[in-house]
Amino acid sequence: MKIKLLITGGTIDKIYNELAGELTFGASHLDEMLERSRSIVDIDSEVLFLKDSLDITNDDRNLILSKCLECSENRVMLAHGTDTMVETAKLLGDRIKNKVIVLFGSMVPYSINDSDALFNLGVALSAVQNKTNGAYIAMNGQVFDFDKVEKNKALGIFENT
Amino acid sequence: MKIKLLITGGTIDKIYNELAGELTFGASHLDEMLERSRSIVDIDSEVLFLKDSLDITNDDRNLILSKCLECSENRVMLAHGTDTMVETAKLLGDRIKNKVIVLFGSMVPYSINDSDALFNLGVALSAVQNKTNGAYIAMNGQVFDFDKVEKNKALGIFENT
Amino acid sequence: MKIKLLITGGTIDKIYNELAGELTFGASHLDEMLERSRSIVDIDSEVLFLKDSLDITNDDRNLILSKCLECSENRVMLAHGTDTMVETAKLLGDRIKNKVIVLFGSMVPYSINDSDALFNLGVALSAVQNKTNGAYIAMNGQVFDFDKVEKNKALGIFENT
Amino acid sequence: MKIKLLITGGTIDKIYNELAGELTFGASHLDEMLERSRSIVDIDSEVLFLKDSLDITNDDRNLILSKCLECSENRVMLAHGTDTMVETAKLLGDRIKNKVIVLFGSMVPYSINDSDALFNLGVALSAVQNKTNGAYIAMNGQVFDFDKVEKNKALGIFENT
Repeated sequence: MKIKLLITGGTIDKIYNELAGELTFGASHLDEMLERSRSIVDIDSEVLFLKDSLDITNDDRNLILSKCLECSENRVMLAHGTDTMVETAKLLGDRIKNKVIVLFGSMVPYSINDSDALFNLGVALSAVQNKTNGAYIAMNGQVFDFDKVEKNKALGIFENT
Repeated sequence: MKIKLLITGGTIDKIYNELAGELTFGASHLDEMLERSRSIVDIDSEVLFLKDSLDITNDDRNLILSKCLECSENRVMLAHGTDTMVETAKLLGDRIKNKVIVLFGSMVPYSINDSDALFNLGVALSAVQNKTNGAYIAMNGQVFDFDKVEKNKALGIFENT
Repeated sequence: MKIKLLITGGTIDKIYNELAGELTFGASHLDEMLERSRSIVDIDSEVLFLKDSLDITNDDRNLILSKCLECSENRVMLAHGTDTMVETAKLLGDRIKNKVIVLFGSMVPYSINDSDALFNLGVALSAVQNKTNGAYIAMNGQVFDFDKVEKNKALGIFENT
Repeated sequence: MKIKLLITGGTIDKIYNELAGELTFGASHLDEMLERSRSIVDIDSEVLFLKDSLDITNDDRNLILSKCLECSENRVMLAHGTDTMVETAKLLGDRIKNKVIVLFGSMVPYSINDSDALFNLGVALSAVQNKTNGAYIAMNGQVFDFDKVEKNKALGIFENT
């Protein structure tokens, strides 16, 4: 079973820029995270772009859609910022019915102590191998159907709608 | 959906004792790991004992079995050392047919840099919610059937048999 | 030998606010850092305020000065943001001649991987016990005289002038 | 000012061997620690051997002595296990009167969470630049004279004798 991992940035990949004194993007941490995880799953990762998900445009979102449609793998993980994760999940879930798509990210960057990033990667990788076709969001230890989930921004958690 | 988390020690929970200069057990890290993970899943954790899995006796293993059988939850996660994880999984898989049991642990303690512990917890928690009845081992990014897995001790990974 | 540790914020104490998605202040990490360091030095810590040093006002700086002057200890450590550390050091060095004052901070927050915070605390604590009266900046592994140092903002390091 | 850093192992450099399930030595972490520290001090590091200090022989100790004597630098840091650090310090302090020698190590390996290693490196680097000729032990936030210190093994701290 081969899995595609598409990377688009989000909090999970943010790092601290010590000259600017702010969080930004450098290289993605996902390959390093998979190595640390001793994963033996056959995963092909690809960085589409590294953006805060509030900055993702319609063109960006269409690029994600076309990558999910065109890739040879039937199981796709998508690393994505949490703020617009539900919007992207709805687009993918509405348009792709013959693949398993699992979106994930993190509330705290992998580069910061006490991050949930490695855990969320585990939940997502398990889900993409074990769920039936459809689009899902893997956050807070749960695997949500794309059309029954929203982010509660006041609490910082994903919830069933 | 309520989940039982049974804790028995293993590498995942080992800590460094700075007076003795060796790895040992203190308190379990599993509750702290779940909090860090921002998990909103309803999980009831219980420490049975904290042992290196090479030191687990038949009595210990029977205690694990009876706890899995007797708990009210139909979905059970079991934190366990990797060296005899397969042996315990076989006992549970042979005897329990009406529950989902997922064993997990780690190759590197949670308290040590570069640990796979948080990732494995994520894989296991996702699996216990999404798999059908049976016993499974969640390690190396995969969810193995209890009767088709072995630990390759030379490589330090779990493999299909 | 008793040492006063005055805390004013700066990068060293910044944490990630996962709801806002930005770095901010919570509680100071300095006491936790000293405990982790197994320090047996008699240190009395006091938080004056927690601010980015670019936001420190003249009133704030005068508060720091009066605290250094008034405290009973002859050896004072000052945790301070790096951007205006030199300015505060000059004020203290010009006005206080009968105490050892050592300013320190970090380029990367203690809460972020790969932080220099714990190292800088060690350099500063060693310096405050071993230097003669005067004001110093302990950064980048060096202990600089207050009137012969500047921050090279392009490189993110302190240098002799 | 150029500084020699001699590396001999000890707890500070121990790593977890996940196949053996025990702590052992791989490569030294000292260069990586100095880079993380944003140190701009001119330091030349050299690994003599990587051993638990309980395994250091008289020949090993004489090698350390000759390296301290023969190196061109007048300021030498020595990374060393804590269990026999005092014994080595006494040999160096008795025999070398015209250099500054600072021994340091850690109670918890750098590779393990909550390690004091980075802090101790900072204390030692500050001391080696600021102390007068002699041999010293930099542990627990203090810089001890070589002939007035012992390790309290019950408490895991260095104390004045």
